[in-house]
Amino acid sequence: MSTETDTGLEIIRDAAPQVLEDTRRRVEPALRIALERLPESVRPVALYHYGWQDAQGNDCDAGRGKALRPALVLLAAAAVDPSHQQERALAAAVAVDLVHNFSLLHDDVMDGDVTRRHRATAWSVFGVGPAVLAGDALLTLALQTLAGAPEAAAVTAEAVQELILGQIQDLAMERKPAVSLPECLAMAGSKTGALIGSSFGLGALSAAASPQQVRLLTQAGRDLGLAFQLTDDVLGIWGDPKVTGKAAGADLKTRKKSLPVVAALTSGTPAGRELARLYQSPIGPAETTRAAELVEESGGRRWALQRAEELLEEVEKALEKGNLAAEGKAGLRSLAHLCVHRQF
Amino acid sequence: MSTETDTGLEIIRDAAPQVLEDTRRRVEPALRIALERLPESVRPVALYHYGWQDAQGNDCDAGRGKALRPALVLLAAAAVDPSHQQERALAAAVAVDLVHNFSLLHDDVMDGDVTRRHRATAWSVFGVGPAVLAGDALLTLALQTLAGAPEAAAVTAEAVQELILGQIQDLAMERKPAVSLPECLAMAGSKTGALIGSSFGLGALSAAASPQQVRLLTQAGRDLGLAFQLTDDVLGIWGDPKVTGKAAGADLKTRKKSLPVVAALTSGTPAGRELARLYQSPIGPAETTRAAELVEESGGRRWALQRAEELLEEVEKALEKGNLAAEGKAGLRSLAHLCVHRQF
Repeated sequence: MSTETDTGLEIIRDAAPQVLEDTRRRVEPALRIALERLPESVRPVALYHYGWQDAQGNDCDAGRGKALRPALVLLAAAAVDPSHQQERALAAAVAVDLVHNFSLLHDDVMDGDVTRRHRATAWSVFGVGPAVLAGDALLTLALQTLAGAPEAAAVTAEAVQELILGQIQDLAMERKPAVSLPECLAMAGSKTGALIGSSFGLGALSAAASPQQVRLLTQAGRDLGLAFQLTDDVLGIWGDPKVTGKAAGADLKTRKKSLPVVAALTSGTPAGRELARLYQSPIGPAETTRAAELVEESGGRRWALQRAEELLEEVEKALEKGNLAAEGKAGLRSLAHLCVHRQF
Repeated sequence: MSTETDTGLEIIRDAAPQVLEDTRRRVEPALRIALERLPESVRPVALYHYGWQDAQGNDCDAGRGKALRPALVLLAAAAVDPSHQQERALAAAVAVDLVHNFSLLHDDVMDGDVTRRHRATAWSVFGVGPAVLAGDALLTLALQTLAGAPEAAAVTAEAVQELILGQIQDLAMERKPAVSLPECLAMAGSKTGALIGSSFGLGALSAAASPQQVRLLTQAGRDLGLAFQLTDDVLGIWGDPKVTGKAAGADLKTRKKSLPVVAALTSGTPAGRELARLYQSPIGPAETTRAAELVEESGGRRWALQRAEELLEEVEKALEKGNLAAEGKAGLRSLAHLCVHRQF
């Protein structure tokens, strides 16, 4: 349990947008310099994806991501040692952000998604080939960014391989008739947990943390990543389309086996069994509402929200144990709460 | 001009299959060990692509590639210093081969090609998602393989970025109404020249070559890469389907703007103009034969073959100037001749 009073918690939560804005202001210039290194013909695709250029190559400021992962890198570094060498943490933050965006570019191609962050996806504007190649270039650039930091490069590459594992498991699960909850949790741990875990770990490494601190923070990041995914999956069913930028019940329409859905399907309840029957055929608008009710009735929503809260508590505990500096720790707590309590 | 007698040249040419077999025997075990590091669910896709497993995951030995690039790495290292540290060259050879196969996996997805090396392409067996992810994993693995060699990792990453540039230019050229020959040569230099150039350069680096040797060999490799692509493009029109594994006139059916085609289109000849008209609408079997004749009549084929021979001479000259050991140099010469005089 958190030891915070309600007012303390509110302060923590309310600080998150400012924390993100502060870290974004530090990461963005370094990220823009890194993107300048991309091959000329690839750059417009990458800058479009980042929301910094429109389809015609004019500068704009659209469809911003949360830039959560690079913020976690900088905050973890500050939490370990407020007087750390900032360039190293910044390079790691840029690398993590590039990896995340490489995976989004390829994800959108593989899933055939046409909208991201309220805009047309890169492949739907530039074509599949340029989007795949832009993803390849961002992945390569991420590892180039860490050329001077072999340990950080190794950690990042490991995280990429685990992310790829999670994505291929995710694709396989969508084709499997029956998926168990442990299987689904393992997939989410790889798909989302690995990179958020390594964001914490890389920040710690950049600030010359002890091996114990690196381990503790990496595990806290992994826990937070899973909590983030649980929240994402809840928003994928009940999120407000105006805020999330996704259609209402988007994940149900595509019969996605997200965590609350799999919890429902494996709940052994009548509602779970009815959902399983619904999931056997294409789902129209009427069935979407019913499917959402069934996930709720069978306890899938409650389980997901509760599991996310438990993981958040684990993260808080780890942060208390990590021998961390106050400001960085407070920033990490703010973003951890944001991950679980966001509406977008 | 080569100073070789005809008999000497024949020996050089005839040695190539044995040279490739010898280097393959050294690279393959290291490559298999590297592939074991891939995430479990990705491995079957990669091993299928390599021809070492069938679609069901049973061991097999099918659809081998030429494994030209890793051979060039090992031979360049041996040419620079026969007593070089073999592990470094082997790691670079594995990395280059992984990069090449990453690009093939993604190429086949982007081009929608269903056959490679006489077999169904990975995406057509496993789906687009798993093939894209397997490519991502091979690219990451390539850079992981060079974790202990920062300079080699940097050279490889640069080559990957240039390869991506070449591929995106290639895609763009296919959509452009008019393409100039210099444009097409620059694209091929990036798409094929960069990685073959870095194969030479990485081999040299692994054997602690002088900066001059690295530069000289890298340029020789780039020249050879362009010669390789010119030959590839000629085979893409006139190659024997039984030997190349591609349909006859494959590149003409897809109206590909390959080097001999662009040479023909920009030749200012009546045949070139007739080809331009043919290329305006879809090309059926009858037009394929006519298009091949027109590339020939306008001098496109002769130009490509002659340019490849000139580049081969440049490569031979560079090898003479490089202060290289006899055996490695002879191996490089064999493979250089193979690149230009192969039928497959």
